[in-house]
Amino acid sequence: MTTGFFEGLSPIAFEGGNSSNPLAFQHYDRDEVVLGKRMEDHLRFAVAYWHSFAWEGGDPFGGQTFERPWHPQDDMGRAKLKADVAFEMFDLLGVPYFCWHDADLRPEQGSYAANLATLEEITDYVGEKMELRDIGLLWGTANMFSHRRWMSGASTNPDPDMFAFAAATVKGCLDATHKLGGENYVLWGGREGYETLLNTDLGQELDHMGRFLNMVVDYKHKIGFKGAILVEPKPQEPSKHQYDYDAATCIGFLRKYGLEDEVKLNLEQGHAILAGHSFEHEIAVAAAEGMLGSIDMNRNDYQSGWDTDQFPNNVPEVALAYYHILKAGGLQTGGTNFDAKVRRQSIDPVDLIASHVGGMDVCARGLKAAAAMIEDGGLEKALTERYAGWSTASAKDMLNSDLGAIQARVLSEQINPEPKSGRQEILENYVNRFV
Amino acid sequence: MTTGFFEGLSPIAFEGGNSSNPLAFQHYDRDEVVLGKRMEDHLRFAVAYWHSFAWEGGDPFGGQTFERPWHPQDDMGRAKLKADVAFEMFDLLGVPYFCWHDADLRPEQGSYAANLATLEEITDYVGEKMELRDIGLLWGTANMFSHRRWMSGASTNPDPDMFAFAAATVKGCLDATHKLGGENYVLWGGREGYETLLNTDLGQELDHMGRFLNMVVDYKHKIGFKGAILVEPKPQEPSKHQYDYDAATCIGFLRKYGLEDEVKLNLEQGHAILAGHSFEHEIAVAAAEGMLGSIDMNRNDYQSGWDTDQFPNNVPEVALAYYHILKAGGLQTGGTNFDAKVRRQSIDPVDLIASHVGGMDVCARGLKAAAAMIEDGGLEKALTERYAGWSTASAKDMLNSDLGAIQARVLSEQINPEPKSGRQEILENYVNRFV
Amino acid sequence: MTTGFFEGLSPIAFEGGNSSNPLAFQHYDRDEVVLGKRMEDHLRFAVAYWHSFAWEGGDPFGGQTFERPWHPQDDMGRAKLKADVAFEMFDLLGVPYFCWHDADLRPEQGSYAANLATLEEITDYVGEKMELRDIGLLWGTANMFSHRRWMSGASTNPDPDMFAFAAATVKGCLDATHKLGGENYVLWGGREGYETLLNTDLGQELDHMGRFLNMVVDYKHKIGFKGAILVEPKPQEPSKHQYDYDAATCIGFLRKYGLEDEVKLNLEQGHAILAGHSFEHEIAVAAAEGMLGSIDMNRNDYQSGWDTDQFPNNVPEVALAYYHILKAGGLQTGGTNFDAKVRRQSIDPVDLIASHVGGMDVCARGLKAAAAMIEDGGLEKALTERYAGWSTASAKDMLNSDLGAIQARVLSEQINPEPKSGRQEILENYVNRFV
Amino acid sequence: MTTGFFEGLSPIAFEGGNSSNPLAFQHYDRDEVVLGKRMEDHLRFAVAYWHSFAWEGGDPFGGQTFERPWHPQDDMGRAKLKADVAFEMFDLLGVPYFCWHDADLRPEQGSYAANLATLEEITDYVGEKMELRDIGLLWGTANMFSHRRWMSGASTNPDPDMFAFAAATVKGCLDATHKLGGENYVLWGGREGYETLLNTDLGQELDHMGRFLNMVVDYKHKIGFKGAILVEPKPQEPSKHQYDYDAATCIGFLRKYGLEDEVKLNLEQGHAILAGHSFEHEIAVAAAEGMLGSIDMNRNDYQSGWDTDQFPNNVPEVALAYYHILKAGGLQTGGTNFDAKVRRQSIDPVDLIASHVGGMDVCARGLKAAAAMIEDGGLEKALTERYAGWSTASAKDMLNSDLGAIQARVLSEQINPEPKSGRQEILENYVNRFV
Repeated sequence: MTTGFFEGLSPIAFEGGNSSNPLAFQHYDRDEVVLGKRMEDHLRFAVAYWHSFAWEGGDPFGGQTFERPWHPQDDMGRAKLKADVAFEMFDLLGVPYFCWHDADLRPEQGSYAANLATLEEITDYVGEKMELRDIGLLWGTANMFSHRRWMSGASTNPDPDMFAFAAATVKGCLDATHKLGGENYVLWGGREGYETLLNTDLGQELDHMGRFLNMVVDYKHKIGFKGAILVEPKPQEPSKHQYDYDAATCIGFLRKYGLEDEVKLNLEQGHAILAGHSFEHEIAVAAAEGMLGSIDMNRNDYQSGWDTDQFPNNVPEVALAYYHILKAGGLQTGGTNFDAKVRRQSIDPVDLIASHVGGMDVCARGLKAAAAMIEDGGLEKALTERYAGWSTASAKDMLNSDLGAIQARVLSEQINPEPKSGRQEILENYVNRFV
Repeated sequence: MTTGFFEGLSPIAFEGGNSSNPLAFQHYDRDEVVLGKRMEDHLRFAVAYWHSFAWEGGDPFGGQTFERPWHPQDDMGRAKLKADVAFEMFDLLGVPYFCWHDADLRPEQGSYAANLATLEEITDYVGEKMELRDIGLLWGTANMFSHRRWMSGASTNPDPDMFAFAAATVKGCLDATHKLGGENYVLWGGREGYETLLNTDLGQELDHMGRFLNMVVDYKHKIGFKGAILVEPKPQEPSKHQYDYDAATCIGFLRKYGLEDEVKLNLEQGHAILAGHSFEHEIAVAAAEGMLGSIDMNRNDYQSGWDTDQFPNNVPEVALAYYHILKAGGLQTGGTNFDAKVRRQSIDPVDLIASHVGGMDVCARGLKAAAAMIEDGGLEKALTERYAGWSTASAKDMLNSDLGAIQARVLSEQINPEPKSGRQEILENYVNRFV
Repeated sequence: MTTGFFEGLSPIAFEGGNSSNPLAFQHYDRDEVVLGKRMEDHLRFAVAYWHSFAWEGGDPFGGQTFERPWHPQDDMGRAKLKADVAFEMFDLLGVPYFCWHDADLRPEQGSYAANLATLEEITDYVGEKMELRDIGLLWGTANMFSHRRWMSGASTNPDPDMFAFAAATVKGCLDATHKLGGENYVLWGGREGYETLLNTDLGQELDHMGRFLNMVVDYKHKIGFKGAILVEPKPQEPSKHQYDYDAATCIGFLRKYGLEDEVKLNLEQGHAILAGHSFEHEIAVAAAEGMLGSIDMNRNDYQSGWDTDQFPNNVPEVALAYYHILKAGGLQTGGTNFDAKVRRQSIDPVDLIASHVGGMDVCARGLKAAAAMIEDGGLEKALTERYAGWSTASAKDMLNSDLGAIQARVLSEQINPEPKSGRQEILENYVNRFV
Repeated sequence: MTTGFFEGLSPIAFEGGNSSNPLAFQHYDRDEVVLGKRMEDHLRFAVAYWHSFAWEGGDPFGGQTFERPWHPQDDMGRAKLKADVAFEMFDLLGVPYFCWHDADLRPEQGSYAANLATLEEITDYVGEKMELRDIGLLWGTANMFSHRRWMSGASTNPDPDMFAFAAATVKGCLDATHKLGGENYVLWGGREGYETLLNTDLGQELDHMGRFLNMVVDYKHKIGFKGAILVEPKPQEPSKHQYDYDAATCIGFLRKYGLEDEVKLNLEQGHAILAGHSFEHEIAVAAAEGMLGSIDMNRNDYQSGWDTDQFPNNVPEVALAYYHILKAGGLQTGGTNFDAKVRRQSIDPVDLIASHVGGMDVCARGLKAAAAMIEDGGLEKALTERYAGWSTASAKDMLNSDLGAIQARVLSEQINPEPKSGRQEILENYVNRFV
């Protein structure tokens, strides 16, 4: 027996590239083996509870456009109905994972104790549904940005009582994530930043945030949570400036507070764009430090200056992201979370399904193209050739010498190297053979 | 006897705020004491040799607009004439410092040995001029981005011979800076980055850059150079991505390669803007880590997506920058370098003078406004009140506790804090009383 | 008898520049005569009903932060309380005008007839308050973007019934504006645009929008409304693309649909910035066409990619805006509307007052600086000199000739003009003498 | 006998999608018939003389990286060698068209008469080469932005003598274009704009630009030039603001000066991006007005704030551009001009060839995908359904009625329409079936 919300829709099947059925997979065949692993195990898709079930279609200039049977979201009965519908969607899509914030699952109660109690109740309810299926929790997280209490920050709040409320909230969410077998726990600091430096002690706030994250890591070990702790870079929005600006900033922060071996990154395309980077840049930066955790797979509109959280639809871009992920060894505890929402004009239930189907197919195409480039080896070969000089003994010796010795050699050997072509267009053409 | 280039112009005098003389200072009185120190000693103005004397007025769509007696710049005789004119400008302006790249001073010779020899010759020539006046070198630096040899990077070049050429070049420039009594040495990595990740091993390049900077620091100590080593953040341009993206990225890099106690930052307003930050943000980030070195005082056009390097002209913005500098203890070895160029349509010699006069006056107004805010103490008082809770013993105890203890307290004490106004507009109005 | 909302606050007085009272005007003395006119008559300040009274403090990542006695805004009784408080604020500030959307004044009723009836009721109520004071309506407008019915546009909606609903809505709002003696009527098309071209017939939608605006103009004449009809450019947000992109686009649109003599522009600094322009650019473009109507005086954060609607606080920028307004003959039926909202952390009633006081003072300083530049005449003189060649008879003859004749003259007279300095820095320094 | 510049390279052949030959077409088979027309006749490829042959690899921070046998470009003999190499490249690529600025073809001579004479000489030389092959001139244009004489504008220069020089220059270039059978003549106003409004009379400059363009159109008719006159939108760079900001701005300008039936637009992806638009937006805007002339097919880096002029490489984006072009009836006199340059690190002759081959293949894929969508008709069908209401008689009647009548009907019929899904994701998925 179902809620009827998705009435008329059947589980999405793989029909292959010739299908013109908009509600079938043309490319995502979960059992297809790519580079020795099932596609499902590579991609590890997750649905984001918030965008599909908690967001009501509002934007800064307009209110709710969606009308769902679980609205208004202020009641535990309707919270359970929402969960019922969510799992019906997971079934239709055949995704192996989902992700949540506490505030997606249960209505705000106005006090910590009541929020905790309802979180426990709803996660028990959700846990039963998970057991009935083969569906896992990719990650849980605490929403510490929507309620007015968080308006000036959570761990970076000028009021220590708010820090306390935040610490208790994360404990509750980490406990719930652990209970449900979550594979990661994420912290995104949408209000950990500032609106104006005029009222902000940036150094002190960063110290508090560093201490807070250390407490989270300590607690994780205390309860034996085996998943990864992830922070999620974003440069701004809602805050004018957010401390977790981008991958490099987060990595510097983690190193400063002694967390570089404990915490990894959850990277999002839209956040990369807002910070002035490509998505593959952020992945490569994290990978170079061994800190690639998980990805939020959505896209921003290149002409919009805010986070649009659209479903991915550009295969060449997605392929480059997965190429760097595969080079880094693939997603381990992480996954491909659709932190994406249908447009607020896409008000029909079928829009929720179709958007995910399209996104999954785009990722499947991207992954297969990336795998083909890995197998062909053309990019790796070009890289090896370009840096070949650094493999010589003399180059390695030079790195261990000093300016004086190098100058002497430049003078004595009259070193005057000629530049070599970077071959960018040839490499771009190469990629286009695969995407 | 002068070159006659600035014929008809006299040394710029302080005439006070009622003067309408466009070639007089209305606000910059170098001997006026502000917060117990002469303005000259606070601001430590420097002229950038490159923009005023080496740049010929070209942009991506057009060539030279300036016609100077030292053009073309391919001859040592004209290089000396250029130096003569430069020092005439320093005299007219009464600035205490200047800054250079090697390539500003001497023509490119095509080989390392000849470049070094001509650098030594011209710095001897310049050194004599410095001795005749009370003018110092704020910093020297190596131009490792203009010549085609650097097109794929200096210390991050795929070719180890280019790394060697770069190391020898920096040694020569650091030696010359030391000889001239330079107070800092700067590295700006305009080509230390990439055009495309397709041909780039980002991790290896960063390791090379880290090793290179360690060599520079070692050499500084070896020769007894007492000045600061500074790196200069910029997110991009000329490269699509530059490794020294912003202050936070540089600090993370320095910490990774063990340089956090050896290297500071040279911050520029235009670079801050390109990275998505305000100038005062970058200053506050560096100050919070004790890594504020020096500033490049120019501005970018907010509607242009590239580095416009214009003279500062917005007093409220400049005042906030100096406010954070004063809070951080002021500029130590650093200074206020006008890394600014006249527009390419400003082709007359008087434009060179007037632009600096205007910039110096804007900085003087900004500094005085900042000092007045420090003396009034209104912002600091507001900050102290906002964070007062963190000075209590219970807040400090909490920071040393753990999630479990905090949760217990939140539950037992039913902690449920009310948000407090951030008072942003009131603080902005406060600043407007001073600017 | 008052509502008590602003308890403890008194009407804001002018205390002059030495006052440190944060709730006094230091610069805005409404009766001070500037260029022969009282400042109040130059600036024509208006408070925007929506930001101060209808907005509840939400942003895309968080909900309501303000808790006001007129919340929730779903009841006519509380709508009247809201109006009571609004007029108490107008009294405290001493502003001569305010502006509204229909949806600011009355709760949404769910049908056209009920919306119209409640609009009539509340505007009667508001009209009585206006009569008791010397306060006018700068402009009225219809909110055709917040309710879900408008999600795909109003006059550009694919559904003709929505066009009908929009036409009827504007009729009601224009009637109400007329009844209250409004001096202008504004149309801002936040949903007149598209999310994706894939589902949009851009040409047809523009034709509908042009026809719609013609109907509005016809109706204005029919009822004898003497105020100006204004459209308000904005490039995007909420829509991905909005048809009224910027001043030049709107002017082209008006000319295409034969409205260039009937409709003027309401320009906003924040919208200018989002479109890649400075505010003074938009003003100059409108002024050059005689289409400058009114201004929304707020600012955007230069580091944020969305509309932040902050109170103005940068005097040099505001001065340039008023300089171009004064050059264009000043604001006629238009005014200075604070389309600005306190930050969502500024939750206290005093924040509402202080933000407006600061904004009014910034505008007063800007206006006085602009007037001083007009009186001094330095900029105008520079302009006259720069374009002097075009006043000659030969230049005018040339404009009436053709390419062949001009080429012949270039050849025969060997015309080869030398470029002349644009003197940008000198002019910027000039401005800094006044701001 | 050849110059040997491309030694070792053979004419590029179509080898089909299974080829891994980087110097073969995988998708561009010029004779393949798509929608009833040969691909060559659809795409009408042109090589831009300037980027491949005149640009020397400089950027704002660095000089020449290319070393070509025709350098330095100050000599007519080497200008002819450059032409020889250019036509060798046209032969290798098999393109039907090329485009030039006068300054690409001949060295600057310092006077109008000498510039004209050398332009005539070199275009005679080039004309002979064109006759020997089946290669046409897509368009000619005058470079009125690189030489210092143009620094303050051409037709908008404050100096009428510069206007005269510009008018004579365009006459010479239009004559040469006509002589060579050019199919269009383009005006791009890189310096028709301003650096600062402080020294600019925007209204007067626009009037001059409008008069200038009228003269060009008059002259075209006088000499019987049958090609189209095109203007090219770009918002900025090199100027801070350019008058031809975007398609809508240009269209408004043309209409104001009575040129809407005489002049069309040459649209470029990179310029669209800089103006805040997608490429397909600019095409759709021009098409809706019947003013689509030609396209410059290149791309900008989404993370760079300046014009990067890279070769197109994203098939989904290119497909949407051609979809709108096909819907508008295809390119008539216009073509697909590669206004694209190899990166300055791509210093080898083969990079010039490979970049064009890759770009042509990307366009071929895009065109075929666009054609398939046209043939399938899915997008058009969705559009027809969405706007179906507007085809009814009642909707048409409404457009011819007035606000009063519409209001009456809304009231009497109680019109209260329900919003319908915009189906954006479903349409995006549809497109992904074809790209």
